[in-house]
Amino acid sequence: MPDLVARPGSEQDVIDILDWCTRAEIPVIPFGGGSSVVGGVEPRFDGPAVTMDLSRLDQVLDIDRTSRAARVQAGVFGPHLEDQLRPHDLTLRHFPQSFAFSTLGGWLATRAGGHFATLYTHIDDLTESLRVVTPVGVSESRRLPGSGAGPSPDRLFLGSEGTLGVITEAWVRLQDRPKWQLTASVTFQDYADAVAATRTIAQAGLYPTNCRLLDPTEAYLNAGAAGSVLILGFESADHPVTTALDRALEIAADHGGVIGERKERTWRSSFLRMPYQRDALARRSMIVETFETACTWDRFDAFHSAVTAAAQDAIERVCGIGVVSCRFTHVYPDGPAPYYGIYAPGRWGSTVEQWDEIKAAVSEAIIANGGTITHHHAVGRDHQPSYEKQRPDVFALALTAAKAALDPAGILNPGVLLRK
Amino acid sequence: MPDLVARPGSEQDVIDILDWCTRAEIPVIPFGGGSSVVGGVEPRFDGPAVTMDLSRLDQVLDIDRTSRAARVQAGVFGPHLEDQLRPHDLTLRHFPQSFAFSTLGGWLATRAGGHFATLYTHIDDLTESLRVVTPVGVSESRRLPGSGAGPSPDRLFLGSEGTLGVITEAWVRLQDRPKWQLTASVTFQDYADAVAATRTIAQAGLYPTNCRLLDPTEAYLNAGAAGSVLILGFESADHPVTTALDRALEIAADHGGVIGERKERTWRSSFLRMPYQRDALARRSMIVETFETACTWDRFDAFHSAVTAAAQDAIERVCGIGVVSCRFTHVYPDGPAPYYGIYAPGRWGSTVEQWDEIKAAVSEAIIANGGTITHHHAVGRDHQPSYEKQRPDVFALALTAAKAALDPAGILNPGVLLRK
Repeated sequence: MPDLVARPGSEQDVIDILDWCTRAEIPVIPFGGGSSVVGGVEPRFDGPAVTMDLSRLDQVLDIDRTSRAARVQAGVFGPHLEDQLRPHDLTLRHFPQSFAFSTLGGWLATRAGGHFATLYTHIDDLTESLRVVTPVGVSESRRLPGSGAGPSPDRLFLGSEGTLGVITEAWVRLQDRPKWQLTASVTFQDYADAVAATRTIAQAGLYPTNCRLLDPTEAYLNAGAAGSVLILGFESADHPVTTALDRALEIAADHGGVIGERKERTWRSSFLRMPYQRDALARRSMIVETFETACTWDRFDAFHSAVTAAAQDAIERVCGIGVVSCRFTHVYPDGPAPYYGIYAPGRWGSTVEQWDEIKAAVSEAIIANGGTITHHHAVGRDHQPSYEKQRPDVFALALTAAKAALDPAGILNPGVLLRK
Repeated sequence: MPDLVARPGSEQDVIDILDWCTRAEIPVIPFGGGSSVVGGVEPRFDGPAVTMDLSRLDQVLDIDRTSRAARVQAGVFGPHLEDQLRPHDLTLRHFPQSFAFSTLGGWLATRAGGHFATLYTHIDDLTESLRVVTPVGVSESRRLPGSGAGPSPDRLFLGSEGTLGVITEAWVRLQDRPKWQLTASVTFQDYADAVAATRTIAQAGLYPTNCRLLDPTEAYLNAGAAGSVLILGFESADHPVTTALDRALEIAADHGGVIGERKERTWRSSFLRMPYQRDALARRSMIVETFETACTWDRFDAFHSAVTAAAQDAIERVCGIGVVSCRFTHVYPDGPAPYYGIYAPGRWGSTVEQWDEIKAAVSEAIIANGGTITHHHAVGRDHQPSYEKQRPDVFALALTAAKAALDPAGILNPGVLLRK
């Protein structure tokens, strides 16, 4: 719990709060929707702490219809942002699962992944420029569609998780609202075939908006299906997507997939409902945890076996029984982003310790087998030990120096990314 | 001219050379193909200088066919890299105009742009992981298709132009060799219509491999054509590209374009020959200079007028007569990357001063009108004054601190990106 919550109503307020905290040497944690699942916004340290709640900065300030971009204040929540874009027939089309409970600033600070499986889905790629208040001044990058002028300033702040400054505004890249939407599911008896089909589709230059491979457990839990299920979706605001879906299904069939019904709709509403289901289970003392990661395709089989075995082993040791499921949330030409779910009965009263033990075991397997400790949830305080194993030590030196330059008093979200 | 050229044959040699230069406090300039057109590798400072020529590190060390990636030493030249990939039926498909005379390490250090107009063309997006030798240690990032674990380590080194370390290896993302290739050209009477058509195509999610809009001067010089010419190309290793080209041509026709003949070939060889033409003209004392930049679509009309006027004015002042041409090399949903050509008769003996005056005038117009001083040529020593106006000052503080941490003696390519 913070000792004080500051609610800036303007960028000048943000500057003043940082000035005050710097002079008083009081840690300050920038706070968007507070939906972090990795301890990103909790002051887990001794002494006073200020939480800077940015939710009053919630306006779309400018729309550039020609370039399809908008200047947006960082404290806006997902639905309110889309409400402000809708009259212009535009959308950011960035739908993390936390969409309703998280803000643009939070997405930027944590390098959020959107709902869509390929291309323009990560907030990194939707960022045209950033405005960031730091204790030593305001940084504003130029609005540019592309640039080769030195290392990207935006990419230093993207993923900085409140440790380098407070993101107050961004110009973000928008899209037209889709008019053509097709989806189809494919069932595979053999998971290895399903993985090979998914990889081939990811490398075919078809760019599906959805390409979610559910392993047998995930398919059973979510769809009551037997076997592995690949859910494919294509969308466009400009042209029919039949040709692309046809080709993707052809690839799937070549790998032994059985094609299900095509539908003209998307999968999004059930995706956004999933966390509610998790909360309902958690209230019944179930341990429901997810691990999201990414690895290259060549490693995937060994990676998946090792992570699944570590998770299953930890569950059985800690809870007696339970299941591990896996789905792909994003696919890249060079690898998938697997998302593991763990469902196990907890003992009432000690679920937190049980959770810690499972989390540690699975995180270790992810790092040992060449994955990333986070593909889109961020590092926060929970992933810090694994992050330190993952990142290059030399990069940590550079980041430490950059932080000391921008935040000389070390007040910004201390303990995240860098040790105090 | 450097005082000493070091030619490391191994990464250990690179480490030893950096150690020696650090101890002796002698500046060292990492050198790939030496094709920089912005003074990136010239020791324009007093005192001794070592050039580290990386061309002996020219091997593909590993191929991962499954993920379509390769571990490659940084000193390899474009053609030699593709020669080593060809037996595996893979290609990096990164073809900067300097392809034959530049190296992977140079592309990475300068954030090179490839030949293709959209999607996977910038070396940034083709980078899976980097290995960089710095004076304080070796940084190696994890091979990952995507990650949200803190700010991207690779994006700090990409574009660092030899100031933070020496890139010795990278895992790069490869592609299958294209099987379907279609190209067509469209002629427009009105340049504004051509720009609108190009923008609409760039925002349609069609992702052409070529989308080069030649303004009337460029079209006349390159193709003897009257009017503006849009050259469209589509390629795929997986599926026919007829549907995509049809739709792009439909958009072009909607904007008043007259569709020319379709052909099953690419535009690449003439593109790679262009610099030779420039050298031939330069030998005849012609001033032939190019400026490459990017801006958002909303600004383009005003930007283009201002840059063209500044260039034309400078040419007439300095050379009496001359022409300015423009083509788009890359297009993004939120803006084009215009490439300006300047052709003017120089006075033999004073062409360098004339070039400087034209360069300064056009650079100022680019910065004043919201462009980037470089979209893919890099900053080097020539663009340094403009770069300082473009980048956020706060980012410069962070970069300065990062450099001091990784290069405490300040020996790495001094004067580039940061003042000595």
